[in-house]
Amino acid sequence: MSHPPTLPPSSTWCPLVELALAEDLGPGDVTTQITIPPDATGRARIESRQEMVVCGVPVVCEVFRQIDPGLEVKVDASEGATPGPGVAIVSLSGSVRSILEGERTALNFLARMSGIATFTRRFVAAVEGTGTQIVDTRKTLPGWRMLDKYAVAVGGGANHRIGLFDGILLKDNHISAAGGVGPAVAAARARAPANLRIQVEVESLAEARAACDAGADFLLLDNRSPEEIRTIREALGDGVLLEASGGVDLDSVRAYAESGVQRVSIGALTHSAPGVDVALEIQP
Amino acid sequence: MSHPPTLPPSSTWCPLVELALAEDLGPGDVTTQITIPPDATGRARIESRQEMVVCGVPVVCEVFRQIDPGLEVKVDASEGATPGPGVAIVSLSGSVRSILEGERTALNFLARMSGIATFTRRFVAAVEGTGTQIVDTRKTLPGWRMLDKYAVAVGGGANHRIGLFDGILLKDNHISAAGGVGPAVAAARARAPANLRIQVEVESLAEARAACDAGADFLLLDNRSPEEIRTIREALGDGVLLEASGGVDLDSVRAYAESGVQRVSIGALTHSAPGVDVALEIQP
Amino acid sequence: MSHPPTLPPSSTWCPLVELALAEDLGPGDVTTQITIPPDATGRARIESRQEMVVCGVPVVCEVFRQIDPGLEVKVDASEGATPGPGVAIVSLSGSVRSILEGERTALNFLARMSGIATFTRRFVAAVEGTGTQIVDTRKTLPGWRMLDKYAVAVGGGANHRIGLFDGILLKDNHISAAGGVGPAVAAARARAPANLRIQVEVESLAEARAACDAGADFLLLDNRSPEEIRTIREALGDGVLLEASGGVDLDSVRAYAESGVQRVSIGALTHSAPGVDVALEIQP
Amino acid sequence: MSHPPTLPPSSTWCPLVELALAEDLGPGDVTTQITIPPDATGRARIESRQEMVVCGVPVVCEVFRQIDPGLEVKVDASEGATPGPGVAIVSLSGSVRSILEGERTALNFLARMSGIATFTRRFVAAVEGTGTQIVDTRKTLPGWRMLDKYAVAVGGGANHRIGLFDGILLKDNHISAAGGVGPAVAAARARAPANLRIQVEVESLAEARAACDAGADFLLLDNRSPEEIRTIREALGDGVLLEASGGVDLDSVRAYAESGVQRVSIGALTHSAPGVDVALEIQP
Amino acid sequence: MSHPPTLPPSSTWCPLVELALAEDLGPGDVTTQITIPPDATGRARIESRQEMVVCGVPVVCEVFRQIDPGLEVKVDASEGATPGPGVAIVSLSGSVRSILEGERTALNFLARMSGIATFTRRFVAAVEGTGTQIVDTRKTLPGWRMLDKYAVAVGGGANHRIGLFDGILLKDNHISAAGGVGPAVAAARARAPANLRIQVEVESLAEARAACDAGADFLLLDNRSPEEIRTIREALGDGVLLEASGGVDLDSVRAYAESGVQRVSIGALTHSAPGVDVALEIQP
Amino acid sequence: MSHPPTLPPSSTWCPLVELALAEDLGPGDVTTQITIPPDATGRARIESRQEMVVCGVPVVCEVFRQIDPGLEVKVDASEGATPGPGVAIVSLSGSVRSILEGERTALNFLARMSGIATFTRRFVAAVEGTGTQIVDTRKTLPGWRMLDKYAVAVGGGANHRIGLFDGILLKDNHISAAGGVGPAVAAARARAPANLRIQVEVESLAEARAACDAGADFLLLDNRSPEEIRTIREALGDGVLLEASGGVDLDSVRAYAESGVQRVSIGALTHSAPGVDVALEIQP
Repeated sequence: MSHPPTLPPSSTWCPLVELALAEDLGPGDVTTQITIPPDATGRARIESRQEMVVCGVPVVCEVFRQIDPGLEVKVDASEGATPGPGVAIVSLSGSVRSILEGERTALNFLARMSGIATFTRRFVAAVEGTGTQIVDTRKTLPGWRMLDKYAVAVGGGANHRIGLFDGILLKDNHISAAGGVGPAVAAARARAPANLRIQVEVESLAEARAACDAGADFLLLDNRSPEEIRTIREALGDGVLLEASGGVDLDSVRAYAESGVQRVSIGALTHSAPGVDVALEIQP
Repeated sequence: MSHPPTLPPSSTWCPLVELALAEDLGPGDVTTQITIPPDATGRARIESRQEMVVCGVPVVCEVFRQIDPGLEVKVDASEGATPGPGVAIVSLSGSVRSILEGERTALNFLARMSGIATFTRRFVAAVEGTGTQIVDTRKTLPGWRMLDKYAVAVGGGANHRIGLFDGILLKDNHISAAGGVGPAVAAARARAPANLRIQVEVESLAEARAACDAGADFLLLDNRSPEEIRTIREALGDGVLLEASGGVDLDSVRAYAESGVQRVSIGALTHSAPGVDVALEIQP
Repeated sequence: MSHPPTLPPSSTWCPLVELALAEDLGPGDVTTQITIPPDATGRARIESRQEMVVCGVPVVCEVFRQIDPGLEVKVDASEGATPGPGVAIVSLSGSVRSILEGERTALNFLARMSGIATFTRRFVAAVEGTGTQIVDTRKTLPGWRMLDKYAVAVGGGANHRIGLFDGILLKDNHISAAGGVGPAVAAARARAPANLRIQVEVESLAEARAACDAGADFLLLDNRSPEEIRTIREALGDGVLLEASGGVDLDSVRAYAESGVQRVSIGALTHSAPGVDVALEIQP
Repeated sequence: MSHPPTLPPSSTWCPLVELALAEDLGPGDVTTQITIPPDATGRARIESRQEMVVCGVPVVCEVFRQIDPGLEVKVDASEGATPGPGVAIVSLSGSVRSILEGERTALNFLARMSGIATFTRRFVAAVEGTGTQIVDTRKTLPGWRMLDKYAVAVGGGANHRIGLFDGILLKDNHISAAGGVGPAVAAARARAPANLRIQVEVESLAEARAACDAGADFLLLDNRSPEEIRTIREALGDGVLLEASGGVDLDSVRAYAESGVQRVSIGALTHSAPGVDVALEIQP
Repeated sequence: MSHPPTLPPSSTWCPLVELALAEDLGPGDVTTQITIPPDATGRARIESRQEMVVCGVPVVCEVFRQIDPGLEVKVDASEGATPGPGVAIVSLSGSVRSILEGERTALNFLARMSGIATFTRRFVAAVEGTGTQIVDTRKTLPGWRMLDKYAVAVGGGANHRIGLFDGILLKDNHISAAGGVGPAVAAARARAPANLRIQVEVESLAEARAACDAGADFLLLDNRSPEEIRTIREALGDGVLLEASGGVDLDSVRAYAESGVQRVSIGALTHSAPGVDVALEIQP
Repeated sequence: MSHPPTLPPSSTWCPLVELALAEDLGPGDVTTQITIPPDATGRARIESRQEMVVCGVPVVCEVFRQIDPGLEVKVDASEGATPGPGVAIVSLSGSVRSILEGERTALNFLARMSGIATFTRRFVAAVEGTGTQIVDTRKTLPGWRMLDKYAVAVGGGANHRIGLFDGILLKDNHISAAGGVGPAVAAARARAPANLRIQVEVESLAEARAACDAGADFLLLDNRSPEEIRTIREALGDGVLLEASGGVDLDSVRAYAESGVQRVSIGALTHSAPGVDVALEIQP
């Protein structure tokens, strides 16, 4: 029933592609210029070297488009596909120089984005059947916010707020500035834009109750054990949205999912996902 | 005897800081605006939460400078310092709103850069006494080339070429296009700019000999075992610079270092370094 | 109890200042160059020529800063001040050339921004005592979104969502694509990010009920009469947030405010606010 | 005999389109993503809701081109056309998401540009038969100089200088710096680039005579009554170009036109033109 | 009586400085990094190596400011100064690395700009006493329009129009499209903006008469001999502004100046001025 | 055997084309707008006016593409072609306005780039048969590094390092900071990236010997006479790469080439090449 994840507007990530090509290609690829004739043409394919969730193919296409609009780029694996090793993801045909110039940048994008999607999928699988969502955080790589969050979505996760502008999350510093959870939530409700819900980080059942009483829309339970969370859930009833976070890993995620939260947010999805192994092979 | 690593020219990384702030802050930090009075001032410090090699402090300073030039930013730990947990790295004083707006972006930079430096230092320590250099690759995060390579240097590693423009490395595709290692090197020597050395990837002793005979300046031995490398070293003598690469990890790196190569290049330094744990604390 | 409106991050409006100076100054102010000696210095002040709500002073300061960082710029009237005619808003001291080069651009910004604030304040005054908020729309001038919305806030209005990214508003086209109000809201609830409320445009009491039943957070009543709105309010009770819009002017706004809505949104605040009269005078 | 107005070079206004889309669309249109399937296609048309002079269609096309080059955009009304209400201006066919994402930005451009053209046309009509030109000023919206002036031309007006760089206009501050009208004009003639005429603002017949004697090319009569202007015209004869300005409105413009000036310049054309009513309708 | 030439607005040339530093410095100055300690400080001066007209000092300052705001830069020779060889133009004090990184870019700017000023001054000297102006053309180096024209002014020349936008010059192609000189000028007068004079290129006395009769403001006589020009001047009388151009060099320029033209325009000022010899010396 | 010179990546020079068009066209070509109907079409060709080496045709194409993608641009002369006068280089067909708007910018690029190529070819011809390379320097025009070096290559020259980042050249200041040639080279060898050779500027045979002993890869002999160079060559033998520089002109270059150096570097190639004569003719 869900739509497939939407690739972010190109204006939010094409500048990163430009930076990436500028830093790698700079004034030109010397090795290619001295060994490959300018008119040499050939075919190549980018392929998986391991099981993975494919993510980043449109970015790969943009990399090669920026280098050489004349290259023919064929997409073999769609976003979210789960090939085993040795499967074609993108096929290229045209100038060999252009293919080699874009190879490393394209692979670097694909390896990270597929890495995040693959890592996310493992968390999603671990909570299968619980109805709990796996959610990302703002611990993305600087410059990569939109691509990182898109990769989480391709992996089956959900996105938390994109940035500081499209969600309200009252954390410890905001709360202490306002004089406690209750006053903080009350102040936020008085001033918050109507289109934004108010989420509050709480550290105890008492704080959770204070937040709900003051009108919080949902709660973030950071660094609480599944047991603590279960207690809070039972005390508050089902009417409030709960999110757990804090050092959740593949071993512990299911216990959190079964503790009664609707969402588990995991910074590691974007700050610690291992890159996947992908390679570009010139075809004979 | 070595100079400390040089922070890359700001024009190569300030655009990334701008992208990073734009994607997180966008039209503004709603939570802060509704909870923190505009004239509230305070102090905060960024501190380590684990043992680490500090890297990225100048980038942290630039993040806060772009947000609010009026913030007072004091550097407590210099690049390359190795604090234990709980040590101050940067102290901030001024507008609480400004501090909170920059917090996540600053930490995201610091966590990755220190992560790379810390991870590199472990490899450097593992080969201590062998004289072998730990070297990075072009498997950096797109947009992050200069910061990633700088972090490797802060961790005690050496930098391979920055990009395709400042080094010649003949790899399989170049070699097959030229008809073999010998002809490839010969062609490269005839056309290469005089200021650049010629490195060649070889897969066997025979290829290594052909490369040297044709005038290669140094060799890359990719996915060879330490034993194979030792054989090649003994056959070629000490006159040629050798570099090993391919799946080297902390367990195997010393064996490579002792196999007779001058350099071991490791993609994982930049594509798989775990982020370190750092946090910003508002001071009471 | 409310904080004063926050000037948007400079990255969201400084590019507009650059565009504005480039289009007016281009390669240089010929008239000034041929009549004013390069070393002539003097004083000038920008002053009101009518009753107004002052807005845009920080933008005026940025205009002159970009032209000549050596100009001394003194702020005489704070944002939101309500001078009568002939009152100083900003005082300038330094190069006469610089003052004259920035004059028109600075005044153009100030006249529009103060115009919006002044116009908004009239609507706010018209509903005084009702507790109803005056809210802006996305009918801002392209390129001016953040400054327009800031000016509304300075005038005492509230901001609707900033753009398409920080609020959900189901309008006719979304609803018909989903097969009606009920299914549209249900689909939105299933897929919407947790941090965003769901607003729905409805055209009748039946639609309003369907929206509420499906879980809408608040309703937009577009082009309904105050009487229709009152009927809907009475039928739904006080639990749902209602917003009226559509051709509301200074004559009709109070009737809407008293009809039971919490918010009245008015496109004219930003697409039809008359500019105020401001002028720059060289001081003798 | 006149050519149709020339759309300014795209480099002078495409950056404004980019700013406008960035501020509205930002990281993406959430409402559309959760309600419209990614592969939904449809047709829409932008149409007039009132009598108007159409202006801005090429900008509308550029808005949709930046969002989605795959959209089919058909122009139904040419620049300067004068439809009644309900007439198609642009027809769109393709992705429904793309159409909805660009709707508001496209309409905002079209409403303002057509608004200026429509307002200008009223002034032009008011002076019909007199031979007097209606001319704009530099009181344009910052960032919009070229589009505003183009809209004036589409409405039948003429453009005053584009900016400070392509015309010389000696105003009070320049004159007092030079020691009077005569010395100011003399100094200007000695230093002015040969390709630029010299216009001088004068406040009396005596100043007008001094300006002409010193070699001014044409005169600006600011805030003079039609009667005063007629006196000056008769005293000076027909050889000098005269321009009137200052608070001219639709009621008074014909009196100015008949007072003997060749041009009447009106800031309100660009700082106070009401936007026209245009809408985008999804076609069934 | 003339003001000193005005340095163009920084927005028109700072992007060129950025391009220049990016292309030379790129990811960093390797030689300096491996030989100069990061904390080494010293003094240097940029000095003349020949007789020259100094031009470009503010650009030199900007180069070093972009590299290192901490460098102390002292201006020893003002724009337009005419030192002999061995005279200090700019003195630098601070980081040796920063000085060496900016050396070549700074000298490249200074050598070209002073070269144009020096070359222009020779033409100006050659026509001394005739009252004829030496004028530049649009044959400037792409990207350098404003700096090239400024350098001409520093050398004592006058500037022709800056670009296609601030002057009207009817050339052969425009004239033939309009059906002859007379119709072309008439059409131009009917449509030209009032602030711009109309210059026409003519090839004979007959064309010159036709242009004047149709209302041309001034004439360009391209590739006419001084004798031809004298004949035209005598036939037309003193009332019309004449400009000569076309292959004028230092040998022939005085004959042109004495032929009765007010201006001689010379493309070689900007497309063929030899660079002057300047050098940076580290001080002991 | 050599590949034809590679046009640099468009990202390194398209910004210069944008700057160039912005500075010349600005808000529009007034002359063309008032004399050429908007729908006039025609043909034109750019042709040589002298013997020359053609260089810059892809840049010319980009100029017209940026102005009007609808123009048909046909390339008549390939890069490096050597036409006599009157030969077509590029043919254009389409909007006359577009052709005239791009004319001057296109010619300015072509004249300089072909000028450098033509000048370089004369040096190359002067050393024909000696095997010595003609090499450029970093004395290029700021902003033009990549185009200047490309033009040298088209003229048959070789490129020295592109900038400070892709080659090591120890000059007097580096050497004195290190305490002499020997220590400087030794320090450089210890710290230099492995992919870069080390070139050293030496002033005497003694310094040359010290450099070689310390491991320099090649030597720069600046301002030495051919006789001095021959002495050094004979003393050092053939094993070391030598480059001569310093005031070499067309008269002296062959003597240098025959003195035993492999390379002669000549700053005048890029700082003093005379522009060639090219013109655009509208076809009847």
